[in-house]
Amino acid sequence: MTIEQLSDEDRAEALDALDEWDYDEARDAITRKFLFADFSEAFAFMTRVALLAEKADHHPEWSNVWNRVEILLTTHDAGGLSRRDVDMAEAIDLLLE
Amino acid sequence: MTIEQLSDEDRAEALDALDEWDYDEARDAITRKFLFADFSEAFAFMTRVALLAEKADHHPEWSNVWNRVEILLTTHDAGGLSRRDVDMAEAIDLLLE
Repeated sequence: MTIEQLSDEDRAEALDALDEWDYDEARDAITRKFLFADFSEAFAFMTRVALLAEKADHHPEWSNVWNRVEILLTTHDAGGLSRRDVDMAEAIDLLLE
Repeated sequence: MTIEQLSDEDRAEALDALDEWDYDEARDAITRKFLFADFSEAFAFMTRVALLAEKADHHPEWSNVWNRVEILLTTHDAGGLSRRDVDMAEAIDLLLE
């Protein structure tokens, strides 16, 4: 199944719903920064995201410095933001509720 | 115990021994890029590094994109590269042997 880049309208709608995520126009990607109490909490979160990513076969670009985690989601095969990124962002947000 | 930044001489000696690591002069840090077969292997490696880091209470700055992992080691409390970074780099290298 081909994964399609979101239309301008669909992207605007998705970004409206993803309060905590920023839009990276240069990459056609969404990003979010997470802050935890310490490294142990940050890496526990990363492990849960890794499991989500592997299950969905859709992986983030991400970095970690001690208690901080930054995640960028985009779909290389689609040349930008796709429904898969929005779904992944929603799944990540659910981990934190 | 105060952690001291390595002297020029000690740093040169350490870098000589760490074949696979590059020196980042701007950060007074060492960096290494790792390539794995896939995300599962990359994240398994990251998990082992996370355990090393937590045990040593010395944490990397790192990023991951699918099968690639980049690690930067420096010691914020020392204002640059210290013995702790060299020890951590050696421990990480041992994971891959």
